[in-house]
Amino acid sequence: MQAMMMNQPLSIIEILRYAAGAHPGAGIVSARTEGDIHRETYAEAYARAGQLAHAMARLGVKLGDRVATLAWNGYRHFELYYAISGMGAVCHTINPRLSAEQMLYIIDHADDQVLFFDVTFTPILEALKDKLPSGMKLVAMTDAAHMPDSTLDLLCYEDLIADESADFDWPELPEDTAAGLCYTSGTTGNPKGALFSHRSTVLHAFSISIALSKSLTEGGRILPVVPLFHVNAWGLPYSAPMTGASLVMPGPNLDGPSLFDLMDAEKVTSAWGVPTVWLGLRAEIDKRGRNPEGFSQVVVGGSAAPRSMIEGFEKSGVEVCHAWGMTEMSPVGTQGLLSESMKDLPFEAQMDLKSKQGRRVFGVELKIVDDNGNRLPHDGKAVGELFVRGNTIVSGYFNNPEATAAAIDAEGWFGTGDVASIDEQGFLTIQDRSKDLIKSGGEWISSIDLENIAMAHPKVANCAVIAIAHPKWDERPLLVVVPAGDEKPELSEIHDMMLQHVAKWQLPDDMVFVDSLPLTATGKISKLTLRQQFTDYVLPDVR
Amino acid sequence: MQAMMMNQPLSIIEILRYAAGAHPGAGIVSARTEGDIHRETYAEAYARAGQLAHAMARLGVKLGDRVATLAWNGYRHFELYYAISGMGAVCHTINPRLSAEQMLYIIDHADDQVLFFDVTFTPILEALKDKLPSGMKLVAMTDAAHMPDSTLDLLCYEDLIADESADFDWPELPEDTAAGLCYTSGTTGNPKGALFSHRSTVLHAFSISIALSKSLTEGGRILPVVPLFHVNAWGLPYSAPMTGASLVMPGPNLDGPSLFDLMDAEKVTSAWGVPTVWLGLRAEIDKRGRNPEGFSQVVVGGSAAPRSMIEGFEKSGVEVCHAWGMTEMSPVGTQGLLSESMKDLPFEAQMDLKSKQGRRVFGVELKIVDDNGNRLPHDGKAVGELFVRGNTIVSGYFNNPEATAAAIDAEGWFGTGDVASIDEQGFLTIQDRSKDLIKSGGEWISSIDLENIAMAHPKVANCAVIAIAHPKWDERPLLVVVPAGDEKPELSEIHDMMLQHVAKWQLPDDMVFVDSLPLTATGKISKLTLRQQFTDYVLPDVR
Ligand SMILES: Nc1ncnc2c1ncn2[C@@H]1O[C@H](COP(=O)(O)O)[C@@H](O)[C@H]1O
Repeated sequence: MQAMMMNQPLSIIEILRYAAGAHPGAGIVSARTEGDIHRETYAEAYARAGQLAHAMARLGVKLGDRVATLAWNGYRHFELYYAISGMGAVCHTINPRLSAEQMLYIIDHADDQVLFFDVTFTPILEALKDKLPSGMKLVAMTDAAHMPDSTLDLLCYEDLIADESADFDWPELPEDTAAGLCYTSGTTGNPKGALFSHRSTVLHAFSISIALSKSLTEGGRILPVVPLFHVNAWGLPYSAPMTGASLVMPGPNLDGPSLFDLMDAEKVTSAWGVPTVWLGLRAEIDKRGRNPEGFSQVVVGGSAAPRSMIEGFEKSGVEVCHAWGMTEMSPVGTQGLLSESMKDLPFEAQMDLKSKQGRRVFGVELKIVDDNGNRLPHDGKAVGELFVRGNTIVSGYFNNPEATAAAIDAEGWFGTGDVASIDEQGFLTIQDRSKDLIKSGGEWISSIDLENIAMAHPKVANCAVIAIAHPKWDERPLLVVVPAGDEKPELSEIHDMMLQHVAKWQLPDDMVFVDSLPLTATGKISKLTLRQQFTDYVLPDVR
Repeated sequence: MQAMMMNQPLSIIEILRYAAGAHPGAGIVSARTEGDIHRETYAEAYARAGQLAHAMARLGVKLGDRVATLAWNGYRHFELYYAISGMGAVCHTINPRLSAEQMLYIIDHADDQVLFFDVTFTPILEALKDKLPSGMKLVAMTDAAHMPDSTLDLLCYEDLIADESADFDWPELPEDTAAGLCYTSGTTGNPKGALFSHRSTVLHAFSISIALSKSLTEGGRILPVVPLFHVNAWGLPYSAPMTGASLVMPGPNLDGPSLFDLMDAEKVTSAWGVPTVWLGLRAEIDKRGRNPEGFSQVVVGGSAAPRSMIEGFEKSGVEVCHAWGMTEMSPVGTQGLLSESMKDLPFEAQMDLKSKQGRRVFGVELKIVDDNGNRLPHDGKAVGELFVRGNTIVSGYFNNPEATAAAIDAEGWFGTGDVASIDEQGFLTIQDRSKDLIKSGGEWISSIDLENIAMAHPKVANCAVIAIAHPKWDERPLLVVVPAGDEKPELSEIHDMMLQHVAKWQLPDDMVFVDSLPLTATGKISKLTLRQQFTDYVLPDVR
């Protein structure tokens, strides 16, 4: 029987409209590229999003068009999130850490009509100049006084919106309308696009707001170090205004001292980001002998948080939430706060739990399966590939039927490419990765892409790229080579070849030679054996 | 453009399934009709809901069937909420305060197949015995040892579920499937049914969880005095397990001393209910000279909270949230917590704000309109009829096209029957009521029904029933009569006539005589003028 309730499509712009009225004191603080600190309330951001939508309509942006951003965490990026999705277009966040080749690929694949960029990234665009789609408009996210010197044909963000009305008649959109697009690395070849909806975005905001209600609440001041250009900054641009928490946006300076000073000055209560950035912050905390004022919770994810880091924070009174997720999950899948009943456990036992990847958030279901797709028990012992299901999870990849088919199983669940166990209490432990990727400082490097390039070198007979643990970057790539003859290749030669296709930070840190590569039963290279073989390998920069 | 995200229908049973895993220590404490304190975790409640669903299937309950409850706040009632909706049937909560006539009307109108009742209510059913639908099954919510002596043909809750499996294969239902049914008083005639969906229920749980995250959080212990038999206990049966708060269910004893003892023993952090019950609690707090241990937040709604009550709680360190809503809104529409920025105001100014009815929760939109349906400004001055819109609001009434047509305006908004102003900050102030109803202790009395009965008395020429302010019940009915001749009717005679149709507590407290009734321009009785005329009237029991 059908109920008799109204049906209003869930809508992203409604979050900001709500915040504008409900949370008058809350808003966005930005350490902006202009070099100063900028402040605006959510009401101001909502008004400016209206102006921006008018300006984009004037530029020709229509329902369903993709509009790209290449930007740090800041208030203009936040305004773009809302204006673009609010007018029924799709906000395509580009990761500036991609190689030129990948960036051009996704701009073309997404068919971006306009690109908004932070002036820091002008050199990237200059370099791509002749290869950018001819019709694409470029907007520098700054005011007239700070426009970069450039041979590019640039529009200026503040000029563009200055004369527009703040009143925009936001269209009512079906809730499964595409709102955001974020590309993530595939194991091979080109990045694949996750295409989020208004529904998935609003439901994700609800779920993380109730899971992390200590941070996400009126009066909360949250520092997203996790970028708006990747994984939607873990949904903070939506959950913070929904709950009335303010956002403190760090802009480009993510080193320990800069973060400490910003957090201290802005009394940040909670900070979210990958382990790598917290290493820098922890060093600074140790140096100054105190926490930034007001700091009480840190959310760590994107890579496994080292236990020593978790303990360090917890001992200094900062509660750690170790979370796991992925772009394709909007992104949060699990969160690691302890239940009240677990807080009576001894410290060591609590840290054991916190080192795991946490438990599912409301709306996300987890299963682990064996090689034949049979479900494995949640007993803390069985290890299998992790599949997920829920409203916040992709049903496939944008314009990529092949990748879609590979990602979704017969039951309609999404394969994460992570290998995990789940214990009786629901805590997930990521044990390994079945996808051939290396995660460095929260960003992906494709082993297979690197291998394909190296294989083209005449002195390489066979090769493999594996992840080596790194104290700062979590993982870094090591190139393992079987030489073709007596003369061995130079790493620098291979680096040069790779630089044509990948970004500099993605290059292997080191190269080692072996006589042969270990194989699996089916004759593939056994990365697992290789990783075990090199488990104690120490990379040059940490020797 | 359509996004590429999974679409899982929002589902009520998923809340309890989630709580069972995510919040192992949380659950339900019940002061039950058996006289003792009963405890169960959400995991246990989920298992028992599974058993209950099997038992109901055995009794013949099918998709879309209505299953009624007549019960206090307790764990079995909670289990019924989930088992009934989870199996795709509709949980029809019956208000035990209805008159026999009204109760029979709604049982018949809803076409209830099974009725679950607390043994306290056995006499009500005995009295209705011959008039109940012949096929309807009656289940006493207790165990074999506590079955009531009765001539009714009764089933026993615990016996019914004892041998069933806890594993129930909950069907996947479209999210607009009906899940709950709650009748509310009309201005005239029979009660009208609000028919909630899985979608509306889950979205409502999200909205109030983020609005009241201080209460609704892991470790929270919430006392719902607001009944599960009316307005869904303000959504607490859903939002508490979703967020990991425990529920402390008071059962039948709602007097000040009983509530104080229960709250004190169970360390209740937050208590929710109508002003009338808090009067009793406040008296007990004053008597003992202290708050119940751990008590830090009270949510008051259902009638206007008196300012003295708000101040009393706030001065003793208990935060007051004055909320407004209605059955047709799931029910919460606004909540009165102050934003951080308002907490710097002087105490008096804060109390001014808290005496208002609060600001909209996420997902609910408010408008006030003049007599022609034109929108009025939100300036704190303009007063008009209040209309609402959102996913948690009814689009009409169950099987009642006439009432539906009267309730929804041309723009598709629902008319609340409340007359209100909204200030620049979004605070709602309920000024008056356009619907002809009196609210006593959180429950409705229809003036028009009482008038129609009184008019049948030969000594009554004309009459009107109006609300008189009452310190305990908020409002009580006063009967204003124009006698037909020199001989005046006795109140007791009129009471006797009324008792055929309404419940005892709905009878007018007093009767006064006038020569004529004031009329409006269009010749109708002007209740407004009459209320002003009797604004200082003191009812007998408070003289
Ligand atoms: N807390 C974590 N521990 C271990 N791996 C993680 C964690 N969070 C994310 N990951 C990895 O990062 C992937 C998602 O990457 P991305 O889509 O870039 O966010 C996951 O599939 C995991 O392999």
